[in-house]
Amino acid sequence: MNINRQRLLDNLQRYGQIGQAQETGVERIALSEEDKTARDLLKQQMLEAGLVVSIDQIGNMIGIRQGERDVPPVAMGSHLDTVYQGGRYDGALGVLAGLEVIQSLNDQNISTEKPIALINFTNEEGVRFAPDMMGSHVLAHPELLEEILESPAYDNPEHTVGNQLEAIGYKGDMPCGSLKLDSFLELHIEQGPTLELEKTDIGAVEMVQGIYWTRYMIHGQANHAGTTPIRYRKDAGYAASEVMHYIGDYARRADSKVLTTVGTISFEPNAINIVPERAHFTLDLRSVDYEALKQGQTDIDQKINAVVLEAGLSLEREEMVRFAPVHFDPSIVKLVADGAKDLGLSVKQMPSGAGHDAQMVAAVCPAAMIFVPSVAGISHNVKEYTQPDDLENGANVLANAILSRTGRL
Amino acid sequence: MNINRQRLLDNLQRYGQIGQAQETGVERIALSEEDKTARDLLKQQMLEAGLVVSIDQIGNMIGIRQGERDVPPVAMGSHLDTVYQGGRYDGALGVLAGLEVIQSLNDQNISTEKPIALINFTNEEGVRFAPDMMGSHVLAHPELLEEILESPAYDNPEHTVGNQLEAIGYKGDMPCGSLKLDSFLELHIEQGPTLELEKTDIGAVEMVQGIYWTRYMIHGQANHAGTTPIRYRKDAGYAASEVMHYIGDYARRADSKVLTTVGTISFEPNAINIVPERAHFTLDLRSVDYEALKQGQTDIDQKINAVVLEAGLSLEREEMVRFAPVHFDPSIVKLVADGAKDLGLSVKQMPSGAGHDAQMVAAVCPAAMIFVPSVAGISHNVKEYTQPDDLENGANVLANAILSRTGRL
Repeated sequence: MNINRQRLLDNLQRYGQIGQAQETGVERIALSEEDKTARDLLKQQMLEAGLVVSIDQIGNMIGIRQGERDVPPVAMGSHLDTVYQGGRYDGALGVLAGLEVIQSLNDQNISTEKPIALINFTNEEGVRFAPDMMGSHVLAHPELLEEILESPAYDNPEHTVGNQLEAIGYKGDMPCGSLKLDSFLELHIEQGPTLELEKTDIGAVEMVQGIYWTRYMIHGQANHAGTTPIRYRKDAGYAASEVMHYIGDYARRADSKVLTTVGTISFEPNAINIVPERAHFTLDLRSVDYEALKQGQTDIDQKINAVVLEAGLSLEREEMVRFAPVHFDPSIVKLVADGAKDLGLSVKQMPSGAGHDAQMVAAVCPAAMIFVPSVAGISHNVKEYTQPDDLENGANVLANAILSRTGRL
Repeated sequence: MNINRQRLLDNLQRYGQIGQAQETGVERIALSEEDKTARDLLKQQMLEAGLVVSIDQIGNMIGIRQGERDVPPVAMGSHLDTVYQGGRYDGALGVLAGLEVIQSLNDQNISTEKPIALINFTNEEGVRFAPDMMGSHVLAHPELLEEILESPAYDNPEHTVGNQLEAIGYKGDMPCGSLKLDSFLELHIEQGPTLELEKTDIGAVEMVQGIYWTRYMIHGQANHAGTTPIRYRKDAGYAASEVMHYIGDYARRADSKVLTTVGTISFEPNAINIVPERAHFTLDLRSVDYEALKQGQTDIDQKINAVVLEAGLSLEREEMVRFAPVHFDPSIVKLVADGAKDLGLSVKQMPSGAGHDAQMVAAVCPAAMIFVPSVAGISHNVKEYTQPDDLENGANVLANAILSRTGRL
């Protein structure tokens, strides 16, 4: 089957105007007014497409298209929330292509053996509320619900997930995790440059690399930059620079199996003529290889400890995120890859570098992902873009994989 | 002669309450309400001590005690402004010890051949308005007056030096530089650990090391930390870490004649999972050796250029400060050193690591400085402290040097 290309493009355009940022971007932070507007539109479109819509206790929106048999549905979906000054495709593509699949099934009067579920997950980005991938996380781990409902906004501790879900009218009553799923597929833009650079149409995502986030604070002593001889200094900034240099080199070694990024840093007091008393920085460490991931974290921590000890400084360290690599279900990955080839598209089996809702759902049912190219690999940016042909290809691969899994009648 | 120790301590205590910060500190930013309060008190005390008070066009306060002869005055002074969360002694000691010298001369009915001037310079710290050492700089270079009056506050571009001087009532009409000086002496805390560590009472400051401040901005490309292979990255943060590590090592070489400090840094967009697009940092480079200072700047710039070129990044560079080392007048330095020895104090001839008003005044008359120990070398901090005995010793050395230079009648 083929989806309706123009309707998909029009719908992406329409959602792109909800929270439009600059000309081409979107800023639709989870649980904001813009999120509510987008959710309301999706709910209306789901109902128009004949779906039975439920909202669960963490605000996930679930629309079900009945199948011939009363069995767990084959699910698809992603998220409608974005980062600050984000793009039109990250998240929205997976939801709207899923809607398009259902609309096309309706247009073509296709019934399926198993039901189909379309899911819009709450707060995938984690911009205002931790953790990210929140809705899918709680779907897989309902025992975390109460704790996560209390999670405060970074910018306003009086705003919690729970009271902001209520404020936008999406604190549902369907128990999280009560809906059993047959399987799950998420279509998403790659957010990296590989498919485009390798001129490949479709990524059949076989795993999500592991992600460790760690926050470090090196504590030294503030001193006057002009009057304090080097031998009397306890320079937290210099120690941080040595560690950061090591971290960068670590991923640049020829045999390295990890990615390292130091994306944030700050000094205190941060004055041109004062030796830094404190240096704060973060490490984003990723690998498809769990052993390499753990070894990388160990090696980097050993280096930091050695630098701090030798310089007479002290260290604080906070583990923010520890996600082991997630391997998707080989049969679902094969379904995606074979389906794409049947459509005459080129396919690469590849890992995902970013985290996605599908990795959470993979804990409760067979799951996989479909990637389409991101122009120049740009994402989390108003310049994020994917060519219409690639959007259409991705939606068609999704449609056919869903149809294979549900069984066409 | 001896000054009145208790009066000096009481007066330091009194000024310490104007803009008091935490228990022991002071926050009296130049041209603030607190600065005005301190200036008003100083003006009143100058008048009570019989001085003729003038305010010049950059707001420097000048009080003159008549001498027997109508010749240029022997001057002393420093500044009453502080950094954010600064201490009681940096600046204030030089002004208030100068006042104490005059009060003691009055008490002891001592007349001098030459007049004596007490100066409170405007905005030595440069916290809100650039450049620092502003009042003494304009005193030595009156041709800069108009430009500097337009200098905007870092935190509010509508506030200029000129309109804020007017706002606190210290935009005077005495032409800058119109007063010729016989000589100048500034008593100041060391702001470093050397005198205390070497158990020395007095520093006879023979020079101020050269200071170069440079601001760098490395420009790369923002990318997703999870999806962008290392080979496709243009990581401004990693490049900055390599350069900062080099800068720190440069001053730590056994034969190094320079001090280096990277005191400020920021990344953009500064997100844990985004490769930094921009890294901003500053270099504070100092040396007593002018050739070493220039060579250090050249070596560091070459390293930055090489790193940026190899990584395919781009660089912006702004020279903020270029002060060559300043050598004080040997006869004034000797006056200080001999005078201290006559009082039974131990003396070290030493350079100043920090910049001071005296280095500016040295361009127009013979000048030097007197240092007293700073406990633990701490300065620009509410914990800044100098022992009462050291405060008294410094004021006595100042008094006797002034008296030698003016000629006691």
